[in-house]
Amino acid sequence: MKTIKIGLLGMGNIGTGTYKALEMNREEIEANVNAKVEIVKILEKDVTRDRGIEVPAEKFTQNPDDIFNDPEIDIVIELLGGIEPAATFIETAMNNGKHVVTANKAAVAANYPRLTECAKKNNVRFNYEASVGGAIPILTSLKDTVRANKYTEVLGIVNGTTNYILHMMGTEGISYEEALKDAQERGFAEADPTADVEGIDAANKLSILIALMFGKYIHPNDIPTTGITEITQEKIAEAKENDCVIKLIAHATLKDDGELEYEVRPTYIRTYHPLAGVLAEFNAVYIKANLVGKLMFYGPGAGPLPTASAVLGDVMEIARTAMK
Amino acid sequence: MKTIKIGLLGMGNIGTGTYKALEMNREEIEANVNAKVEIVKILEKDVTRDRGIEVPAEKFTQNPDDIFNDPEIDIVIELLGGIEPAATFIETAMNNGKHVVTANKAAVAANYPRLTECAKKNNVRFNYEASVGGAIPILTSLKDTVRANKYTEVLGIVNGTTNYILHMMGTEGISYEEALKDAQERGFAEADPTADVEGIDAANKLSILIALMFGKYIHPNDIPTTGITEITQEKIAEAKENDCVIKLIAHATLKDDGELEYEVRPTYIRTYHPLAGVLAEFNAVYIKANLVGKLMFYGPGAGPLPTASAVLGDVMEIARTAMK
Repeated sequence: MKTIKIGLLGMGNIGTGTYKALEMNREEIEANVNAKVEIVKILEKDVTRDRGIEVPAEKFTQNPDDIFNDPEIDIVIELLGGIEPAATFIETAMNNGKHVVTANKAAVAANYPRLTECAKKNNVRFNYEASVGGAIPILTSLKDTVRANKYTEVLGIVNGTTNYILHMMGTEGISYEEALKDAQERGFAEADPTADVEGIDAANKLSILIALMFGKYIHPNDIPTTGITEITQEKIAEAKENDCVIKLIAHATLKDDGELEYEVRPTYIRTYHPLAGVLAEFNAVYIKANLVGKLMFYGPGAGPLPTASAVLGDVMEIARTAMK
Repeated sequence: MKTIKIGLLGMGNIGTGTYKALEMNREEIEANVNAKVEIVKILEKDVTRDRGIEVPAEKFTQNPDDIFNDPEIDIVIELLGGIEPAATFIETAMNNGKHVVTANKAAVAANYPRLTECAKKNNVRFNYEASVGGAIPILTSLKDTVRANKYTEVLGIVNGTTNYILHMMGTEGISYEEALKDAQERGFAEADPTADVEGIDAANKLSILIALMFGKYIHPNDIPTTGITEITQEKIAEAKENDCVIKLIAHATLKDDGELEYEVRPTYIRTYHPLAGVLAEFNAVYIKANLVGKLMFYGPGAGPLPTASAVLGDVMEIARTAMK
């Protein structure tokens, strides 16, 4: 039996979750791809942190070249987060003939044409299912399974932090500040929540959805973006009076004249619409297309094990299709 | 550019929808698979019916062997419906080296081990995404994209006819008989609605979901099945008093001791549960698994173009992965 060898860049929460998930489900995963799967090297400074799992000390390195230059490594998983050095590392890995899997929406959205071109040039796979909607298999579905359609519209609740805050404001009647504090205490918001509450994270994800669905690259900075910091109880009450809830929606629509409109902003959603029922920190992506009509995908948009599900799914896809 | 040649078995509503959908989206489909895609022969008695599209008369045949024995045909799409002769035709096509795509839940559910074995033996692909949930990419997601998980439970609203009837009874306060009549007038129920209202169709789909998720084959006849014919306004009111709606749920759960429980029956669903918001003729499949936690897929479960979306998606998957 062949062994698929993986180099892991970053062992924070998501990296640890991925390592754990592989241990938890190794038997099923290896049976499915008909190969052994092993994380052989890990780029990570913090080698002493208690991660709740045993990781052999010799797997850790502080030099990324130990991974890029190892001819035995087939796949590099990038879980550093942030645009740089992640994007450069992804490129270096591909230039060294490695397939790459990442969960990093910021790095992918900021460099989509460059990274997809680099993968093509090197004839390697570049998979990033976890970058939008966490565990929800939305990108693979749009890229492959539902690809017979002409897509016309996407509405996404793609940021769990803001959905949680808006949900708590709507159901508990608390202020934006109180809801943010609650989200931070529960681990749904970071100490510096800017990227989430200002809609930047949602714009990154919309940029990736647009590239996949409409074949156009829009840099996230060029997507008109309004966050949720101005949402008040008055606005929530006004929405309720109109039989609506307020959701932070990443929206793109292809108009009849071929023009693409896109925006991230707090949006009225009718209470009977499937997106209105997406509660707390959950994510959902709702699409319209000319054969299917409407489809919606719903699930956890973040968290170590859900994200690991998508990352390992990407690894298995490479194992099945590109490493036979 | 290569041409992928398809033989189509059956040109009723779904076959016509598939033919139309290929004409509508041919450019995008062919660009995606980097090949021309052509339906070259059609097994169908009714060659004169007005289908709203022009089909060259010479494509029709009344002899299935014209398709099975044509060495130029790569893929056979089976859209006859019903268990026989469909299952035998699927087998014959595979024994003749053809990849097979079908939307036929009855034939797949009744013959799952035989048909999947036959595909393996002949080293051909056997794709049936449209057989559960119509346009919803549920089977491919469970089989591949989310496969890193251990699945523990599935709850499916997999029959649009019964969901429509229960929805109308709940929102309009009409009787089962009135709602059935309405569904028949709108084309959501057949003249003989037995397979839908008695839960037989849902049991077929649950059998396929169980085979994919849990690797066990349960013949649909062995799934305890209760339909919706006994649902009254009293029962709907009782559910409402308990903050629930009644849905026909196809349910399977893997217990801690490894035992699999399965059943199709009308079930109380809490109003805040994502499945409660699946209205009218829509379908949804809700799963639990050890990494993702919860996922739900929502969309149209039937209809010519939605079903065609899944059928053509299966064709494209074969073109991309098995015919490179």
